[in-house]
Amino acid sequence: MSARRISILGATGSVGLATLDLVGRAEPGRYEIVALTANSNAEALAELARRYRPEIAVIADPSKAAALKDALAGTGIASASGPEALVEAASRDADWVMAAIVGAAGLAPTLAALAPGRVVALANKECLVCSGDLFMTRARDVGATVLPVDSEHNALFQALDDDHRGYVDSVTLTASGGPFRTWSLDEMARATRKDALAHPVWSMGAKISIDSATLMNKGLEVIEACRLFDLRSEQVKVVVHPQSIIHGLVEYSDGSVLAQLGAPDMRIPIASALAWPERMRTPAERLDLARIAKLDFEKPDEARFPALALARTALMHGEGMTSALNAANEIAVETFLNDHIGFLDMIAVVSDSLDEVDGAETLPKRFADIDEAIATDLRTRDVARGVVKRLTAKRA
Amino acid sequence: MSARRISILGATGSVGLATLDLVGRAEPGRYEIVALTANSNAEALAELARRYRPEIAVIADPSKAAALKDALAGTGIASASGPEALVEAASRDADWVMAAIVGAAGLAPTLAALAPGRVVALANKECLVCSGDLFMTRARDVGATVLPVDSEHNALFQALDDDHRGYVDSVTLTASGGPFRTWSLDEMARATRKDALAHPVWSMGAKISIDSATLMNKGLEVIEACRLFDLRSEQVKVVVHPQSIIHGLVEYSDGSVLAQLGAPDMRIPIASALAWPERMRTPAERLDLARIAKLDFEKPDEARFPALALARTALMHGEGMTSALNAANEIAVETFLNDHIGFLDMIAVVSDSLDEVDGAETLPKRFADIDEAIATDLRTRDVARGVVKRLTAKRA
Repeated sequence: MSARRISILGATGSVGLATLDLVGRAEPGRYEIVALTANSNAEALAELARRYRPEIAVIADPSKAAALKDALAGTGIASASGPEALVEAASRDADWVMAAIVGAAGLAPTLAALAPGRVVALANKECLVCSGDLFMTRARDVGATVLPVDSEHNALFQALDDDHRGYVDSVTLTASGGPFRTWSLDEMARATRKDALAHPVWSMGAKISIDSATLMNKGLEVIEACRLFDLRSEQVKVVVHPQSIIHGLVEYSDGSVLAQLGAPDMRIPIASALAWPERMRTPAERLDLARIAKLDFEKPDEARFPALALARTALMHGEGMTSALNAANEIAVETFLNDHIGFLDMIAVVSDSLDEVDGAETLPKRFADIDEAIATDLRTRDVARGVVKRLTAKRA
Repeated sequence: MSARRISILGATGSVGLATLDLVGRAEPGRYEIVALTANSNAEALAELARRYRPEIAVIADPSKAAALKDALAGTGIASASGPEALVEAASRDADWVMAAIVGAAGLAPTLAALAPGRVVALANKECLVCSGDLFMTRARDVGATVLPVDSEHNALFQALDDDHRGYVDSVTLTASGGPFRTWSLDEMARATRKDALAHPVWSMGAKISIDSATLMNKGLEVIEACRLFDLRSEQVKVVVHPQSIIHGLVEYSDGSVLAQLGAPDMRIPIASALAWPERMRTPAERLDLARIAKLDFEKPDEARFPALALARTALMHGEGMTSALNAANEIAVETFLNDHIGFLDMIAVVSDSLDEVDGAETLPKRFADIDEAIATDLRTRDVARGVVKRLTAKRA
């Protein structure tokens, strides 16, 4: 078997590191690393580069260019920096690309990674939330295969038999329910940053932990699922499942439901993408249902978690609105994390921002290109900052 | 789309009727019925024949030949009776055959149903338990496709991706645990026929309800799964799951587990076989996890349910022993249902019978033909009757 040539965009993040962990366990020669990229941690990137020997290491932050270059001196590994270098690295000849750059910064490189016959493992949410139609159409047009890495979407991908796509009635994403699943609205209003960061199952970054606490994360995932699998909003259901053992379910027209289950270890979905269309062995913990003993399920409480309905409404309006939703939410979460607004204020900020953006311009159903998506993103961030300013001024 | 030519062996049983229910709901002309067969209920068979218009209706019991013939007079539907007519009906030109004859009587007709390019939906347990290697080898040799209809094995079939067969670490069959899941051994010793027939989830015939109460049903299913999917005993796990919502799970080498779930409605697995390789719509109840709220799992208690270990031991010894296990169990269940032995005596009868048969002859690892399987079956029944006689004599 010839080596699989792979690139990892966002190598120093949790998904990037988990991918490299699997690569490091494979028999020598199985993988050949083309490019590793990172946002600003030149030291960590250089260390990974020395270990995994890519052709090139790219740092997004231009101010870290010299640090990276120095750290790789004498290794024979090329280095580069800046957004254009990121796009160049993403489009380099490779069989498989892990697209794990966080946020809107990942849009251009991930789009650039799409190439004929290439497999793109997608861990960047914004590609689908902000420009999913554009991205999926491009993938189809060039003949690239997109494999979702997010545990819920990867579960659906595994449970969706290609031969039976036409018989899918609905899919279900499970949600842990976050740390406030059993809290009252009053308690949620007083929730602190620390309360909100205490995710019951997964250990994740701050932004996504907060999104899990508001269920905005699940709202964004509904949008992603619709675009990834070409489904309507009403076909993508959400069920709260605190143990997060079942990650996703697909209901077929005959009443059969196929589901993917597994321990909460990101290496499982990553491995399924890395080995696709085969499978590979991983050291991930094995599922032991008798030990787990009990799986619970409940309807999400839309009154306490309005983010879900907000996301579905945005989805009806198209890419412009989902892009605005994502941008406004990023500002709201950032402001909450800086202790400037309360937990329940976040959804108010997002909702008000969407109203304001929607009133000021006609948001497109579908973006013509990434620049349009980025422009909407930036405009909405400005609007959301204004909304936050007015809210905090009123309180002061 | 041209009509699918189908035959149903065991048309008047629950699986046969559920199959015809689905056929009756399809658009006219979708299916053409070749043969319908029944054991001894000529009246019910004739009624089905008048409704579904097969080419031929066959009754196994020769004493019912005249009754069937009379009931079909003037309909233009041919009729026949006896074991040879059953085999002839099974081998008639059809695209799809439901093999739902209960017990050892199904061996010869089901084997006869295997033909090049034909799909055989398998609901007869004995084919796999008594002569699974013979049956599966024949299916492969002639180029027939075997689709399991039993809900657990159908679940595994659905969760087993053909491309990933080589990456299966294990499969898990779920067991409801039966009516005695929470009973003590003392309580089980005093369990009545009525207690044992009260299955918590599925409404089934008496024999299979008792097998569910002893977990012998699950032991037989372990044997079936090994032969159906070419797995070793230790690769086929059993977990008790009282709600019977998850029917089977497949664990892959990467830690991913794929499972099939559904309401306890036999039409779901039957539909998956009837429409294969496509799917079809059924009126079966839809799964609503939030309404079900909770799925429980526990290890089977091998001390209270020794049937599981007994089945695994028989499996190690090969077809001769699993055939003997099945035969001895049928006698034990029959005797229990006639109130002649206690609940816990059943497993003792089976165990003693196996010891006796194994001591008297060398049971083959693999049968050369069906006649050999039937001979072992008959000899073991005699032995088991002797064991029962001695047991009841000792008590009297």
